Amino acid sequence: MNPICKLFGIKLPIIQGGMAWCSGWRLASAVSEAGGLGLLSAGSMTPDLLREQIRKVKSATRRPFGVNIPLMNPNAENYIKVCLEEHVKIIFTSAGNPKKWTARLKDAGVKVAHVVASARFAAKCEEAGVDAVVAEGFEAGGHNGKEELTTMCLIPAVRRVLKSTPLIAAGGIATGEAWLAAEALGADGVQIGTAFAITQESSAHDDFKRLCVTLDESSTMLSLKQLSPTRLVKNRFYEEVVEAERRGASNEEMLEMIGFGRARRGMLEGDIENGELEIGQAVALIDDIPTVAELMRRLVADHDKALSRLSPTHGHSIHSTKALVEAE
Amino acid sequence: MNPICKLFGIKLPIIQGGMAWCSGWRLASAVSEAGGLGLLSAGSMTPDLLREQIRKVKSATRRPFGVNIPLMNPNAENYIKVCLEEHVKIIFTSAGNPKKWTARLKDAGVKVAHVVASARFAAKCEEAGVDAVVAEGFEAGGHNGKEELTTMCLIPAVRRVLKSTPLIAAGGIATGEAWLAAEALGADGVQIGTAFAITQESSAHDDFKRLCVTLDESSTMLSLKQLSPTRLVKNRFYEEVVEAERRGASNEEMLEMIGFGRARRGMLEGDIENGELEIGQAVALIDDIPTVAELMRRLVADHDKALSRLSPTHGHSIHSTKALVEAE
Repeated sequence: MNPICKLFGIKLPIIQGGMAWCSGWRLASAVSEAGGLGLLSAGSMTPDLLREQIRKVKSATRRPFGVNIPLMNPNAENYIKVCLEEHVKIIFTSAGNPKKWTARLKDAGVKVAHVVASARFAAKCEEAGVDAVVAEGFEAGGHNGKEELTTMCLIPAVRRVLKSTPLIAAGGIATGEAWLAAEALGADGVQIGTAFAITQESSAHDDFKRLCVTLDESSTMLSLKQLSPTRLVKNRFYEEVVEAERRGASNEEMLEMIGFGRARRGMLEGDIENGELEIGQAVALIDDIPTVAELMRRLVADHDKALSRLSPTHGHSIHSTKALVEAE
Repeated sequence: MNPICKLFGIKLPIIQGGMAWCSGWRLASAVSEAGGLGLLSAGSMTPDLLREQIRKVKSATRRPFGVNIPLMNPNAENYIKVCLEEHVKIIFTSAGNPKKWTARLKDAGVKVAHVVASARFAAKCEEAGVDAVVAEGFEAGGHNGKEELTTMCLIPAVRRVLKSTPLIAAGGIATGEAWLAAEALGADGVQIGTAFAITQESSAHDDFKRLCVTLDESSTMLSLKQLSPTRLVKNRFYEEVVEAERRGASNEEMLEMIGFGRARRGMLEGDIENGELEIGQAVALIDDIPTVAELMRRLVADHDKALSRLSPTHGHSIHSTKALVEAE
């Protein structure tokens, strides 16, 4: 049995990324209902709202779900308190030290996954005793690592350092083909952000979703490297950021400029020019706004089709060993 | 039959990247002898040296080989003249407009592949009538695209725009698992640079190869973005580049600083501190300096092993469609 499915008690090793302003109870419960693992994103909620959202997911599905908590968030401890009080069984932590909370959460019977962007931090996660590691590449939307490691290079590097911990690949995975590619690289499952942000159940503003459908390969860029690398849509807000960096703006100026409100304004309120819009490079591959159930069906169908295409009976791969022998 | 193997008359759809200071006759002929396609890198040779190297490859192997020509190089036209005079049958062009030479080369019976870093340029290649497209992601060593598209996102995007042209994936591919991942994403074959640069037959300096074996995931960075994005090893030379960019050095200053000699000094002469060292992110996965034949054996064995691991009988993938049905 797939180790990610076994760990979380789910049917498909597909985790929906916990994305600020996108991942509310509608999205999380729809993903869990469809056989994956839905996650609420605590980062863009107050602790009270998180409690309400947890209760709503529970009334919408009896299947496993989880909560994503960015550990650097000033509310991190309160989020964890709410999760424990509400008997949340799965927590994905990110942006912080996995040693801080993992043991306490596991003592409380919670399964813990931590998000990293390098093999070095993946090894620290295993030391901290996490149940799974999410390794997220440079192509991912939103917050990102400083090493700029792509999913293609990161996943095998993380696989090599992990002794036994299950590995979830993230970054650039929006299709069944990319899911299969991640498995080829050594991942047990995938975390998908961008594609779930652009579903009907995502709580992002419709104008943001509609914009995403029109975006292409040149529409995003990793920016804000001075503060904390973040992949953004190249809209007017992005141009402001680039201009401020060019003139050598201080961290304080930058912080004021981006502020907490800018992402809300873009993704929740739909100000697609002046808001901060976080989305991954794989947005170039997305052409419509499906339901979660439809997206899951496509992921599975495309994954299995790609696998058949590669299979020996289709004439490609069985020949490689033979071809080498012939060549020698 | 695999379309890349058919196109070039080779046994394995593995192309060795044409890398300045690495890809001389020893490397190219060893790759071709092992069943892949070896390429000479014209960019770091005089036209006379290129002629000599072509003759040496021909006396070392009767199998197909090719020459990589960067079209922006001031010697590009002379390289092409030499290739035609020496009856080279395969040319990979890069860094320039594929419309300039493709038709003339094809009229002369040459198979032409062109290297791109975006789907937009891939479509232009097909219009220009190339025989194959190489799509190279952000993780690749050396010269790189401005859009910063990773292999994971670039390959499916290019696959979607190409009507019938065979597709070769490049960037971050140093293992059989990554080769399989590239196939899952829709590539017909792969171009491998970094792993071949670090073989016994590579003409790079031994000190450079030995350094590469020690590098890890934090050892390279895409830099020189102001001039022409290039992935470099973070040595003393790299620090000089970063410092010059920080103080707002002009393009002229930057050009003088990097000059033609710096890459030669690093990769051919082995000055690993003050020379310009180009290598891909996948260098983190390389632990020794094998022969080309040994590297090819590993690529094939790891590719086929990864494919077996994913196959339905191993319990993972056959279940996804079934699992979805169960979940519904």
